[in-house]
Formats: sequence, structure tokens, C-alpha cells
Amino acid sequence: MSDRLRPSSAGPVAEATGDLLRALRESPPLTQCITNAVVTGFTANVLLALGAAPAMTDIVGEAGMFAGIASGLLVNLGTPTPEQRAASVEAVGAARAAGTPWVLDPVAVGALPVRTALARDLVAMRPTAVRGNASEILALAGRGGGGRGVDAIDTTEAAADAAADLARQHGCVVAVSGPVDLVVDGEQSIRIANGDVLLTRVTGGGCALGAVMAAFLGTARGTGHTPATAVAAATLAYTIAAEDAAREASGPGSFAVGLLDALASLDPASVAERAHTTSAFAPEATA
Amino acid sequence: MSDRLRPSSAGPVAEATGDLLRALRESPPLTQCITNAVVTGFTANVLLALGAAPAMTDIVGEAGMFAGIASGLLVNLGTPTPEQRAASVEAVGAARAAGTPWVLDPVAVGALPVRTALARDLVAMRPTAVRGNASEILALAGRGGGGRGVDAIDTTEAAADAAADLARQHGCVVAVSGPVDLVVDGEQSIRIANGDVLLTRVTGGGCALGAVMAAFLGTARGTGHTPATAVAAATLAYTIAAEDAAREASGPGSFAVGLLDALASLDPASVAERAHTTSAFAPEATA
Amino acid sequence: MSDRLRPSSAGPVAEATGDLLRALRESPPLTQCITNAVVTGFTANVLLALGAAPAMTDIVGEAGMFAGIASGLLVNLGTPTPEQRAASVEAVGAARAAGTPWVLDPVAVGALPVRTALARDLVAMRPTAVRGNASEILALAGRGGGGRGVDAIDTTEAAADAAADLARQHGCVVAVSGPVDLVVDGEQSIRIANGDVLLTRVTGGGCALGAVMAAFLGTARGTGHTPATAVAAATLAYTIAAEDAAREASGPGSFAVGLLDALASLDPASVAERAHTTSAFAPEATA
Repeated sequence: MSDRLRPSSAGPVAEATGDLLRALRESPPLTQCITNAVVTGFTANVLLALGAAPAMTDIVGEAGMFAGIASGLLVNLGTPTPEQRAASVEAVGAARAAGTPWVLDPVAVGALPVRTALARDLVAMRPTAVRGNASEILALAGRGGGGRGVDAIDTTEAAADAAADLARQHGCVVAVSGPVDLVVDGEQSIRIANGDVLLTRVTGGGCALGAVMAAFLGTARGTGHTPATAVAAATLAYTIAAEDAAREASGPGSFAVGLLDALASLDPASVAERAHTTSAFAPEATA
Repeated sequence: MSDRLRPSSAGPVAEATGDLLRALRESPPLTQCITNAVVTGFTANVLLALGAAPAMTDIVGEAGMFAGIASGLLVNLGTPTPEQRAASVEAVGAARAAGTPWVLDPVAVGALPVRTALARDLVAMRPTAVRGNASEILALAGRGGGGRGVDAIDTTEAAADAAADLARQHGCVVAVSGPVDLVVDGEQSIRIANGDVLLTRVTGGGCALGAVMAAFLGTARGTGHTPATAVAAATLAYTIAAEDAAREASGPGSFAVGLLDALASLDPASVAERAHTTSAFAPEATA
Repeated sequence: MSDRLRPSSAGPVAEATGDLLRALRESPPLTQCITNAVVTGFTANVLLALGAAPAMTDIVGEAGMFAGIASGLLVNLGTPTPEQRAASVEAVGAARAAGTPWVLDPVAVGALPVRTALARDLVAMRPTAVRGNASEILALAGRGGGGRGVDAIDTTEAAADAAADLARQHGCVVAVSGPVDLVVDGEQSIRIANGDVLLTRVTGGGCALGAVMAAFLGTARGTGHTPATAVAAATLAYTIAAEDAAREASGPGSFAVGLLDALASLDPASVAERAHTTSAFAPEATA
């Protein structure tokens, strides 16, 4: 843990998670996903199970118009075809114009040139949040060479300073996934120790979380909750559901099925007592 | 219910469903699907579970040739990339030339411009059947602005007249999905009250039904059953299987898995007694 | 069974399977898949469950660079868009330059012109292994017209001579999937009678095996095991896991889920005693 941070009560994020989950189910946020071909189905099912309304609108000529009416947008760079690259730029421009919160997931950035160039362009367009594993966050901050494809080869804490720098530089929330998830926004630092290792044995385990973040950000608009709180709440709801699924699973196949069931039956009232979170504020702004 | 319709016996459709399901399994219809990237895997698995032979042949230079030999074709506009748009036009042209029955699923038509233009072109090419939710059918008939993406915001009955108009105008069957499914062909109107709300919590729950319709239409060729009967039979078989799956499910994840198991074990002999259908004939042709 | 083959002990392949599975889990092979849109998610989940590291890097400008660092590569022609066709050629060129073993899965070759031309080009680039059903292997060898799409209409044994010819002509391993799987390399012929018919009721049941072969080939590099042994070991591990899954399944849906669980829990020590394999050597080289 960075020595610029001091621990404080975890209560606010855990309480906010229950409130946001209730609000999400009452008024399902239309959540646009421009995401990779491997996880589109799973991602849509995660959103539906949670109670959100997915829309995988990712073609040129429609992605931008849709981003203007969506509640939240995910741009995931896992399999960035030319069509998706153009649609991503179109959607992000429209999301910015409309004030739609958007999440950038720079999958395998650093290791591969096409997505690395695109990720650099997109992060400069000031996403509401960036989500990645430690290797991806280090690479996006210019501090590492990236992992081998989608695998993190660095620990979350090794990426904490890079995440804080990225957050301050681009005015965004940065979420680093790992055994302990880290969410920073330049002011605040939240750590979430819920979840299960089976999330790393299912394709889309991380990518779908990016979509859940976009959904929670959409729900949080106008509620007074900060983007960092919404991103942490998304992480907490998702990883608590993962614990429920892991308890019943016989392996990664039944875990993925159970995760959908658990998201659908997740009780907002139980989230606070099950949270393993800490949050801290930086004592001073640093460049 | 439109006052132009009078109730009659539900027996014929329910009986036909068992017969067509038996015939489908004896001689699996080669069912070509040009469908959206979110649901390709689930759709193929639904067809395989049912006993049909899926083929997701959707590239230019192959889609047309394949439509000439397929038993049935689905064109679903959920994520219409330029390649898929061109392949769809190629396939539909070949299907018409060869007499291959084809189903158009105009996902999110009305709300989004690229697919709306394509859907208008394709419906003018006289599909054997059109399948959509109420908002999509209203939009395709020029009577509504479309839903928010894939969500229906109108009821099935609100779309009944638009469905009948579309059916008469293009000489096709129109199927409107909802809590009660409606199938019309300009002469006849069939309502099916089987199914489960969990179908709306699984991505592809509706899209896969379009593929099942294409499979049943392929099987029905040369049997004397009308396209409307085949489309209604597909709906009935699928929604009865959904009831079996819902009974055992703990949520949307286990429901989707159970739906595949239930389709594979669906007993043709039990369909008739489990059907909740009504059918009616228009007493006179109306413009 | 070809009369050029005489039976010998099945021990070596079965023993090698346990050793390679242990090695794969200790050092997960980075397995690049350029595969069809229907099965990307399932294929990645199969690799993750087994213990390998999937990467579905399939765009131009990245596919080649990645093939140079991957442990193994799969090129599957199920839905060959123009982008994927170009990426496949790029990746194969880089794999050859780097010595990365690669597997060609010529889905539906023979029946469809675009992929047939591409498959002919790629097989001439000397894949480490070719995997297909009997109809596909016959078509690739110029001895048949191909099946109806992905369906085999020929038996494995009917393709045995064509497989041996292909293997000798291109210096590759050829694997023919069927009730009894056949693996030949011009010298040796291995038959594997494990598995379950439910593999044919799940989309990607065969395609994912091609990815498992690429993973095992990556693990086998530098171990002294031949490519034919690695391909046979992949088949044996996969089909034994399928038997575990079939025992618990209620149909194709629960079978696919259970297959992932079974791959994750497959015990290397139990593989040898569960194997139903025979292997034979050709008594003389034949043209």
C-alpha cells in the first residue's frame, strides 16, 4: 500500500453498493458494449443477470448515435477489428458530447501495437474510468511492456503508483483487477478483497466487470455518488456474487453459470456486511 | 385481441408441432444463420440441442451459395457489420432463387439507422417470416420509433394490427414475441401463451427462436403445413422447453443451460397436451 | 483399418498424455487462436479450464507479431472474414519463421469456395497438424466434395488413406475426428476410442479440440515427444474429460458446462488406465 494513503472507514462504498444495485434494478441502465468477440455473449448475460439492459451496438454509423442515448458505455480492446476501432472512436466522441460515462478496458495493451496506439488515443479522450490488470495499467502509464497477452505478470500493488498517476493525468478513475482490486481517482484509494480465483479461469471474468462498471456509472449519474464510488460498487457487487458462485461450483464451467445466477439473486441488503473493503484519501495532491 | 379475429380450436398447431419435431429429428434441416456476434454460439447450441444442423455461414462469397443448399436461413440484424450486410443480401437473393424459406429478425430496427435501412430493403424481398418484439414490428411497419435497442417497450397486442398489415403487405408470416406470442399471416392469427420470463434474462433468448423458426420452416417444406403453422410450431416447442428449464433453474445462468437440455429431451408426444394456444381466422380480407 | 498398419502397444501415448498435461499446467502454453465467431468463448474457456493461456489475437498487424511469441497457434476457418483471412496468413508466416507449432482446422472445406482456396494455400505452408472430420480431410486431400457444412458424411476409416497421404505430402500430422479418432503422421497411426457422442451436440466440440492440440504442441516443444504424440495426447485428455462430463450430464447444455469442470479436474495420473488407444507403425514408407 502506498505510504501516501491512510486507511479510513470502508462503510461508504459498501453502503453505496446496496443503494446503487437497488436503483439499477428499478431503472435498468442501457449499457452499450463495444467489446471483444470472445466475451460478447457472456458480457451481455452478466448485465442481464444483474438487472441492466445490454446493447452491443458496435458498428460505424450506429455506435455514436447509440452512445448519445445510452446510460453508460464500455470500450474493450480485446479483438479490435478495423470496424470496431472506428466505431469506438465514433462512440467515445458521442459519449463525451452527451456526458455519457464510459469505461476503457485496454486489454493486452503494451504487448500489441494496434490496440496500444488506439488505447493511447482513447485514454487522452478522458474516459470516466479505465479498467485493467496490473500489467495493462503499467503499460498504459508507460511504465511496463505489458503482459503476455491478457495475463497479468505484475501485482496490483506494483501498479498502484502508475494507477494514481494515470488517474490524475487524465482526470479518470483507474481500476486495477487482481486478488485485491484497487480503485483510485487521484484523491481516493479503495481496495476490495472480495472475489474468487475462479474469475481468472473463465474468459470474460474481467471483461464483463468493465461492463458492470459502465452500468453502475450510468446508474450513479445524478445520485451524488462519485465515479470512483460507482466503480468500486460495481467491483464489490460482482466479486461478492463470485463468492456465492464459487461456493457451489465444481469447476470453471459451473462457476460461470453460477455467477449469472448469483448476480440475479444478489441481495442489496447483504452487500455491506459481506464487503472486505478499505478506502483511504491522499493527504495531499501530488503531481 | 383484434375484433377481426374469432377463436377456433388450438389443436391443429399443437398436433403439427409434434409431427414437425419428429420429422426434424429424423432428417435434421441444414439451418444457415447470419446472426449477431453476441448470440452465435448460443444459437448454434439451441439448434444442435433441438436436433437441427446449424451452419453459421456469413461471409461474402459463401453465404449465397450456401443459402441455395440450406433447408432454411435466418438473417438477424443484431450486429450488422459491412461484411454481414453484404452477405445477408447475397444469401437472401440466393434463398429466393432456390425457394429456401428465410426468416428476418430486425433486431432494434427503428432506433438505429444502418440496420433500419437494411431491414426495409430485406423485408421488401419478401421473407417467409419476420420475427421481432412488439417495438420492432411496429417500427418495421412504420408505426413506431423502435425501442431502446433490443428492449420492447410496447405490448404484443399493441402490435397486432401492425403485424397483420406487414404480413399482408409482404406476403409473409409475422411473429411477435412477448408474454403471449403472436403469429399472423394475413389469414390466420395464432397466440401461444407458453414460455417463461427467464427467456428475457438470457441474451439470445429471442434471437435463437428465429433460428428455430428457420429450422422448422425447412422441415415443413413439402409437408403441406403452412409457414404460419411451422413458425407457430417452432415457438411452441421452444417455449415448452423453456418451461421445463425454468422449473429446474436457480437463475438465468442455469436456465440457459437447462434450456439446451430441455430442447434435446423434448418429447413430441407431450407437446399437444402442454400447449396453451389459440388460433383464429380473419372473417374477411382487409386492406 | 489400413492393411499397411500393424497394432502395437498403446502405452506410450497414454503415458505421454499424463506427462504433457502435468507440464502444461506447470507452465501454461500461450495458445493463440484465430478461430470462428461461433466458438471463440467456448474455445478460450476450454483452454483456461485445461490450464493453458488462451489469446484470441486475430487482427491484421497483431496476429503475426503474436504468433512469433506464442507457444502454439490454431487457425480455424469456420467463419473466415476478410480480416481473419489476412490475419491467418500473417500469423502462419510468423509462426513458421519462429518455429511456433500451428494447427489448421479447415472447417467445411470443399463445400465452400472461399475457405477452400484459403485452406489449400495454408496446407501448402506445412502446418504442424491438420484437424478435421472425415469429410473435411477427404476434401482437403482432393478425394471428396466435402460435407454439408460442418457435418461429416464420411467415416473416419474411409478417410484413413487420405489422411496418410496428406500427412506424407505436407510433412504434417493429420487428425481425423470421429467416434474413433485417428492421428497419423506418415510413419505412425494412432487410434483413440475415448469420448462421447455429446461432443457432436455442442458447437465447438471439435473446434476447441484444435486449440487443445495447439496447446499440447506448444508444451511438447523440446520434450522429445513427437508432434503426433502431442496431438494424440490432446485428443486423449479431451475425450476422457468428455466421458467424465457425459456421466453427469442431463443433455448437451449441462455436458458443455461439465466438460469445462472435467478438464479442470482431470487427473494426469488416471489418464493411462482410462485410455482406449492403439498405435501402429507403417512397415514401409509409401508415396
